[in-house]
Amino acid sequence: MVLEVKQVLRMKEGTDETSYGKTSYIQKQVLSLTKSIKEKAIMDFYCKEQPTTLCIADLGCSSAELNTLGVVSELIDATEKARRQLGNGHQEYQVYLNDLPWNDFNTIFRSLESFEDNLKKQMGNNFGHCFVNGVPGSFFGRLFPTKHLHFVHSSYSLMWLSQISKVELPKSLSSIMVVTIKNHRSRRVFPLKQFMQGFIEEAKLHTFNIPQYTPSAEEISFIMEKEGSFNLNQVHISEIGWEANEHYNNNNINDPSSSFDHYDFVKCMRSVAEPLLVSHFGETIIEELFKRYMEIVKVSMANEKNVFVNVTVSLTRKGCSI
Amino acid sequence: MVLEVKQVLRMKEGTDETSYGKTSYIQKQVLSLTKSIKEKAIMDFYCKEQPTTLCIADLGCSSAELNTLGVVSELIDATEKARRQLGNGHQEYQVYLNDLPWNDFNTIFRSLESFEDNLKKQMGNNFGHCFVNGVPGSFFGRLFPTKHLHFVHSSYSLMWLSQISKVELPKSLSSIMVVTIKNHRSRRVFPLKQFMQGFIEEAKLHTFNIPQYTPSAEEISFIMEKEGSFNLNQVHISEIGWEANEHYNNNNINDPSSSFDHYDFVKCMRSVAEPLLVSHFGETIIEELFKRYMEIVKVSMANEKNVFVNVTVSLTRKGCSI
Repeated sequence: MVLEVKQVLRMKEGTDETSYGKTSYIQKQVLSLTKSIKEKAIMDFYCKEQPTTLCIADLGCSSAELNTLGVVSELIDATEKARRQLGNGHQEYQVYLNDLPWNDFNTIFRSLESFEDNLKKQMGNNFGHCFVNGVPGSFFGRLFPTKHLHFVHSSYSLMWLSQISKVELPKSLSSIMVVTIKNHRSRRVFPLKQFMQGFIEEAKLHTFNIPQYTPSAEEISFIMEKEGSFNLNQVHISEIGWEANEHYNNNNINDPSSSFDHYDFVKCMRSVAEPLLVSHFGETIIEELFKRYMEIVKVSMANEKNVFVNVTVSLTRKGCSI
Repeated sequence: MVLEVKQVLRMKEGTDETSYGKTSYIQKQVLSLTKSIKEKAIMDFYCKEQPTTLCIADLGCSSAELNTLGVVSELIDATEKARRQLGNGHQEYQVYLNDLPWNDFNTIFRSLESFEDNLKKQMGNNFGHCFVNGVPGSFFGRLFPTKHLHFVHSSYSLMWLSQISKVELPKSLSSIMVVTIKNHRSRRVFPLKQFMQGFIEEAKLHTFNIPQYTPSAEEISFIMEKEGSFNLNQVHISEIGWEANEHYNNNNINDPSSSFDHYDFVKCMRSVAEPLLVSHFGETIIEELFKRYMEIVKVSMANEKNVFVNVTVSLTRKGCSI
C-alpha cells in the first residue's frame, strides 16, 4: 500500500519517551520566543471587538499537549487580563485544534480534562468557559465556516506541504493571524545523502523528499501582498540554537539544565521525521539511520553554532477595525 | 491504577473485526428506525430558520464511522432537499461529533476524507461545505457556546451515565433535539450473575455495575416537563429484535442476510462492554466470559423473542419559532 503524504505527515504519536509530545523542546522554545507577539495581537483584538464567543484556531496543532494547549492557555490568559481591565463579565472561548486526520488527536483529547482544571484554577472564579474541539483536515482546504474565526495561530506548521494548493483560510478568518515558520536560512537538519550513502539504495535516497518549504521573510511579505486579504502588522525574525538555550541566555536565566544536547536534538528530530522516513525507507533501517545521524549531530553541535531561523508574521484581515 | 468510569465507558476502538465500528449492527438498525423523525425535525427547522451555518451535534458519537457519519449524511441530505425546494444557495454545515475523551476519535477522523468525498458526490455540484469537528467531553457538562447549536442528535448514548449530574445542554441549544434511548422494558443484556457465578469472585460480581439507566417514556416526559426548557413534540416507541430483522420485516424486505445470529449479537455486545469488563475483572477472564455468554445467548435467541425497546423523543426549545 502506498501511503499518501498526508497520512505520514504527522508527528510521532502517543506519550512515551520517544513521542513528539515528550521530545519537542525546539518547538516549545519557538513558541516562547513569539509569546509577546501573540499576546499583543489577541489583546488588541479583544479590546476592540469584545466578541461574545472568542473563536481561536491553532493550525497544525500536532499531539504535544504542552505546546498546543500551552499556547491556548497563554492566549486565554492574555484575553482574561484585558477582560478584567475592561470590567467585562464571563467570556466564552471556542478553541479549534487543527491538524491532518492522521495526527494523534486521541492523545491531545485525553489531556484536556487536566488542561481545563488547570485553566479554571489559574483564571480564578470569574472564568467563563473554554470549549476545545478537534478539527481534522488540511489547512490547504476549507476547515471552518465563513468568517468564523477571530484569531488564528500556527507555529512550525505552514511550512509543511501535504499538498500543493492555495490556502483557503482567508474565507474563514475575520480578524487576526500570527504565523511562525522556519526560514530558509535555517541549518539543514537531515543531510541524508551525507550519512546514508552506501547504506541505502541510491534510487531511494534520490526520491526521498521532506515536503517542506522554508521561505524568506521577503517571500512571505510578497505572497501576502499578492494574496491581498491581509495587512502585515509585524515581521519578527528570531533564532533558536539546536541546544535551545538562546532564549534562556537572552533572558539571563543561567540554568544549565535549560540547555539540550545532541541526544535531545536527535530525539526531537526523530519524533518529527520517523513516520515520513518509515513510510519511504521501511522500518528496518530506522535504528541504524538514527545511530549514524546521532554521530553527525554530535560532531556538528560540538564544532558549530547550528540554528533555526524563524519568521513570525502578525497579520490583520483587511476591513477589520484593528 | 484505578480507572474512572469515563475512561472505560467507551466502545471498542479501531477498525478490526471485533471493533465497535465493525460490529454495531443493533445501533445501526436503531438509527434507521428513527430516520424519518430526524429528517422531519431538521427539515422543519431549516425551512423556518434558514441559518447561514447550520450547527449540528451528535452526542455520544462513538467510533463507528457508518453509524455516526451515516446520520450526519442523512441529516444533510434532508436539509439539502429543503434547500433546493426553497431555491436557496450553498449551505454551510458545522458538525460536532461528541463523545468522552477516551473514545477513539482517531478512527472517525481518518474516515472523514472518504465521507466528505461521498457527500460531495451524493449532493451534487451545488453543495456547499460540511465542516466536521470532534468535541471530547461529557455531555453532562458544558461542551458548546451559548445557543450555538441548531440541531442535536443522540442515539443510544444519553442512557450511559459517566457521572451523576444535570445535563447542561439546554444552554447550548437554540432549537431542536432528537434523542433515542433504550427503554426499561428492554431484555436485560448481561445477566452476569447467571453465567459467571462460581467462576468469578462473588465480591467482584457484586461490585460490577453497568452505568446505564433506561427510563420509561413517562419518566422522560416527566423529566422534560420539570426541566422546563423544551416542548415535547413527539414520543415514539420502537422495538428491535436481537436479530435486528424487525425493521426489515416491517419494510417487507425478505433478504435472509439481513437477519443476524447469536454470533453477531455477542460480537456487538462485546464491542460495547469489553472496555468496562476488562477494567473491572481484568483481561484474563474475558475469553471465558464471552464463551459462556455465547452459550446463554444462543439458547435464549433460539427459544425466546428478545427485543430492545427504544424511546425516541423529538423536542423543541421553548421560544424557538417552530
